[in-house]
Amino acid sequence: VSDQVAADLRAPESKGQRTRQAILREAASLSTLDGLEGLSIGTLAAALGMSKSGLYAHFGSKQELQLATIDEAGRIFFDEVVTPALVAPAGLAQIRTLCDSFFDHLTRRTFPGGCFFAGAVLEVGTRPGPVKQRIVEFQQMFVGLVRDFAVTAIEQGELVDEVPEQLAFEINGLLLAADAGFVLSDDAASLEIPRAVLRRRLAAAN
Amino acid sequence: VSDQVAADLRAPESKGQRTRQAILREAASLSTLDGLEGLSIGTLAAALGMSKSGLYAHFGSKQELQLATIDEAGRIFFDEVVTPALVAPAGLAQIRTLCDSFFDHLTRRTFPGGCFFAGAVLEVGTRPGPVKQRIVEFQQMFVGLVRDFAVTAIEQGELVDEVPEQLAFEINGLLLAADAGFVLSDDAASLEIPRAVLRRRLAAAN
Repeated sequence: VSDQVAADLRAPESKGQRTRQAILREAASLSTLDGLEGLSIGTLAAALGMSKSGLYAHFGSKQELQLATIDEAGRIFFDEVVTPALVAPAGLAQIRTLCDSFFDHLTRRTFPGGCFFAGAVLEVGTRPGPVKQRIVEFQQMFVGLVRDFAVTAIEQGELVDEVPEQLAFEINGLLLAADAGFVLSDDAASLEIPRAVLRRRLAAAN
Repeated sequence: VSDQVAADLRAPESKGQRTRQAILREAASLSTLDGLEGLSIGTLAAALGMSKSGLYAHFGSKQELQLATIDEAGRIFFDEVVTPALVAPAGLAQIRTLCDSFFDHLTRRTFPGGCFFAGAVLEVGTRPGPVKQRIVEFQQMFVGLVRDFAVTAIEQGELVDEVPEQLAFEINGLLLAADAGFVLSDDAASLEIPRAVLRRRLAAAN
């Protein structure tokens, strides 16, 4: 448990919301190591040094815990990766900022096992249900965001001869591969190739 | 258990090698659903309708089973994806064939959970040890293969102004994203975008 999580857990009862968030941040961290399926109220309680019954008071079931964890990981991803892009100048700069922020959230080690969603997308694929559905929605939101940025960039003449859906797919693939390479190597230098690919890809486009 | 696996398991004792291969194919299939970490001699024995002691005779430990499963998945991937590319005309056609064969091995549903290695790469990242090492080696072999094809394509003038390592990284990312999209959607139509991206990417290059 990180110092921040420990501090949040020591917070008074009235800070229930903050406690809940600290629990879910730890759950998201654990998920990037053991998978969403490996997450359980038992293992999370052990990691937090809490009682299982204390956690059951927050989350009634494993699935409820998984869904709340995905939502918290989404909130963190939104803060760290999406928001910087949303406030960047409209169009191509938003795609560049989104990718840079993504790389930064890897090297900052927001989660010990890399990008929460990259891992989840390849884990939950064959398990129909609300957990998969939530991951699919997040994935579609993310690819749709890149597509929208590309549409704006095309309207502004920053991109020519591009199919927004295809560019969004390419960028999603590059970020997946960047995450895999970073986690396997545990080395920020592994991001040099994806950074170079993106520079070329987006420079060639305009 | 598939009919083929069941048939192989009914094979006479003298076909020990074939039995071992059938067991490992089932283990690789299960891994694409539950992860390499979710694989155990117990769950595999249950899936195969064999005794745990029978499986222990083949594989002394969970790690030995995991390593043997990776090797068998590698053999299958080599047969279905790499070999068609190796026998294609040298250079750009090899990259195209490699990608087409990869898509075919997804739509043929060689494994129920998509590409064995795409899933494994994002699962084993944070667990140092022989299993991670084997996956890293396979990943490096695959990216190195695309890079070598690209080097030949450049020498032959089929590709210009390309950095082989970067092109190999892009293609790896596209295949990862194609796998994720196919598994999440369970729909071969999801491969239309990655196929179109590759056509454009490799056509633009020459």
